[in-house]
Amino acid sequence: MKDHIHDGPSKPNGKYPAKQHAKQVKDYILRNGGTEGVIYLEAQKTRMLEDNDSAAPFRQRRYFFYLSGCELPDSFLTYDMKEEKLTLLIPPVDPEEVVWSGFPVMVQDAFAKYDVDDVKTTPGLNSHLATYSGKVYAIENQVSDQTTFLSFSSTDFTTIKTAIEECRVVKTDYELELMKHAAEVSVEAHIEVMKAVKFAHNEQDLEAIFIKSCIERGCREQAYHQIIASGKAAATLHYVHNDKPLGGKLNLLIDAGAESSCYAADITRCYPIKGKFTPESKSIYNLVLRMQEECMAMIKEGVLWEDVHVRAHRVAIDGLLQLKILVGDTDEIFEARTSVAFFPHGLGHYLGMDTHDTGGHANYNDPDPMFRYLRTRGELPYHSMITVEPGIYFCEFIIKPYLHDDKHSKFINTDVLEDYWEVGGVRIEDDVLVTRDGCDNLTANCPKTVEELERIVSLARE
Amino acid sequence: MKDHIHDGPSKPNGKYPAKQHAKQVKDYILRNGGTEGVIYLEAQKTRMLEDNDSAAPFRQRRYFFYLSGCELPDSFLTYDMKEEKLTLLIPPVDPEEVVWSGFPVMVQDAFAKYDVDDVKTTPGLNSHLATYSGKVYAIENQVSDQTTFLSFSSTDFTTIKTAIEECRVVKTDYELELMKHAAEVSVEAHIEVMKAVKFAHNEQDLEAIFIKSCIERGCREQAYHQIIASGKAAATLHYVHNDKPLGGKLNLLIDAGAESSCYAADITRCYPIKGKFTPESKSIYNLVLRMQEECMAMIKEGVLWEDVHVRAHRVAIDGLLQLKILVGDTDEIFEARTSVAFFPHGLGHYLGMDTHDTGGHANYNDPDPMFRYLRTRGELPYHSMITVEPGIYFCEFIIKPYLHDDKHSKFINTDVLEDYWEVGGVRIEDDVLVTRDGCDNLTANCPKTVEELERIVSLARE
Repeated sequence: MKDHIHDGPSKPNGKYPAKQHAKQVKDYILRNGGTEGVIYLEAQKTRMLEDNDSAAPFRQRRYFFYLSGCELPDSFLTYDMKEEKLTLLIPPVDPEEVVWSGFPVMVQDAFAKYDVDDVKTTPGLNSHLATYSGKVYAIENQVSDQTTFLSFSSTDFTTIKTAIEECRVVKTDYELELMKHAAEVSVEAHIEVMKAVKFAHNEQDLEAIFIKSCIERGCREQAYHQIIASGKAAATLHYVHNDKPLGGKLNLLIDAGAESSCYAADITRCYPIKGKFTPESKSIYNLVLRMQEECMAMIKEGVLWEDVHVRAHRVAIDGLLQLKILVGDTDEIFEARTSVAFFPHGLGHYLGMDTHDTGGHANYNDPDPMFRYLRTRGELPYHSMITVEPGIYFCEFIIKPYLHDDKHSKFINTDVLEDYWEVGGVRIEDDVLVTRDGCDNLTANCPKTVEELERIVSLARE
Repeated sequence: MKDHIHDGPSKPNGKYPAKQHAKQVKDYILRNGGTEGVIYLEAQKTRMLEDNDSAAPFRQRRYFFYLSGCELPDSFLTYDMKEEKLTLLIPPVDPEEVVWSGFPVMVQDAFAKYDVDDVKTTPGLNSHLATYSGKVYAIENQVSDQTTFLSFSSTDFTTIKTAIEECRVVKTDYELELMKHAAEVSVEAHIEVMKAVKFAHNEQDLEAIFIKSCIERGCREQAYHQIIASGKAAATLHYVHNDKPLGGKLNLLIDAGAESSCYAADITRCYPIKGKFTPESKSIYNLVLRMQEECMAMIKEGVLWEDVHVRAHRVAIDGLLQLKILVGDTDEIFEARTSVAFFPHGLGHYLGMDTHDTGGHANYNDPDPMFRYLRTRGELPYHSMITVEPGIYFCEFIIKPYLHDDKHSKFINTDVLEDYWEVGGVRIEDDVLVTRDGCDNLTANCPKTVEELERIVSLARE
């Protein structure tokens, strides 16, 4: 039973840098014309399942976590921008509850654990707020009815949300360590799935292995609903069922990542279920890999993400021309946006406490279909984290309308295309940190070449 | 890798008996002085995670499921009591969404899959409702703002909720089959954990195995937040952390069950981590087992659950007297309620779509501490499902106040008690169906005797 026992990668030591984050948010506000005031944020509330006596799954509110590192529900924080004083308010001890649940996190525990200047309990919230005056920054619809801002002369319900969203784009070193932990756990879980796919019966067997591998390494939460799609289902971008038999299918696409202390990993791999790519699958796989490699080579501080996304399309067009799925002039195909039929989504998105992290400024109304679903726009700053996830899909729902559109149909060779439907779809996704002169791939240890993947899948023993 | 591949137990064939349930609910209403009308119920809505572009975990609304068997969000149903006509309304196809997610459940699929008379799509809800008149039965706060009851002459927002809650107590054969599936999957998952505990390092390794075992057998959801407590943590009744090392601990307590198509299993087992009970642990274990056996022997249609609960306390007192943890007269100890210090919770609860199922009529304000936390009160009807889960715990938070209370302290031998704190707590929980002259234990295949448990734990290989 050795194979189920892992201590796994380690989380970083020390405290989550709440005060550093608060200072960055303060600086952002002042830099953008704001004035000093008191930031007020609430943790997510404990909620019950409807018509039930159990709590609903809890997900900490990210704005609150960013300025506290505190995972407790029903808590509050204030940050006095002028004094740079961060105060955390946690729920008090409920003696009745201790009998059933043991001691909760106490004030002294919280003070030792979190990077804050003071810890109080939540019944003192309004009297604590009453010690402040001037402006209070809070988030609309995230202020409890019982909270009173009576002592403040003005309230601002918009600035702080944007400020935190923008600051979150650039990761502090501690955040990076948490993301490395999520990445390493996820890589190990992906490898466990690769080792099992050859003799698994159903997508759900692989979902089970992935989740188990994360939990036993300390990541109880998945960063997002994993996609485990066999055969043609890989062409369904938002496939969620993960419950179909693997028998007779060519390839598996698995898009899954763990969450570690609110920070996400997001990895996609695609490989042959029986350990050997077909010629068509291998061609498409290596094309997507080349798209990813050429894009990664462009990434560094200040690169325009649209330019990188365009590179992926350029490589895709070249490759599809070589395979004779596309025919015609490269530039004409590019201008017609025909490659969007095969690569319909964006190249990647910021990654952090949300899988599709804040600060990306997507424009879902962009009239240009090539950029409409690009979740991150503009220049990538130093120490931002972004996914690089090109794909090529053979999805009938998406491609068929192109075949009936004169603008595109002349560029697509339907005879050749016929040989590729069984490939389903290929996506390769890694998580990279943007550096001064390049990028660091946090998920580089996840096998990716045709040779590595065929080898690890084939090694499986029944 | 054979050990991760299971087809597992099978779910029942055929349709969930929505019309049978609707008819039962109708009969209940008429039997209790209500009149015919139209029942209107809503499915749970799709909800997004806050500040995020992903859907929150979905849990179907139980009232809706009971009268439809439909797991789709954002749906509605009506049941015309007079005509006994059940109509399901499901979301329409969204062409934009098909591109990303493939086809949803269509009207013809739903008609084939669910036991209903008609299927429509939800944009037609109000015009469908307008075809009815008279009384409409609905649930308070579970009627969408857009829903109009204009054609009805009266509305009743209380009756239907109670009617469904009471009907749910008695399980139909199909419900029983779903519960057997949940039970069998859970039993197999418990056995996987037993086989792994000897060489596991941490509670989370066992949580991982339990969840994996359920998912690969087709149960993606847990019925409740599992308790996996090693050593003294087993005395914390609502232990939820499941993340502590196993090293140096005596016993494991695991309270976990899968959910199958909204139906729960709820099983607790307790065993020695290294495969051999200590004398103290074995004494307590066998005492709890005897409590359970004597209680199960009493269960049949019409038994008063309070009487069964009392039997558990009587057996506990006898056993604790034999072990010399208690001293004094049996009846005096019983009257003083001193045994509540060691067995503070109720003997069991109805089980069904909720783990603590409806219709139990608990009285949490009962002045008698022996019955205050008994979640089911009164006589058990034929074909109800109930958990039988006696326990003996050595919890300082609970026992210490008894040691300082003259009413109880004279009955407790603290010198002997000293030897038992390390036992932590023992609970044994099975799920039984109440029959005419006894009960059927759905979870009987989960190892339970000292000999079975020591054997299966010891068999583990590293």
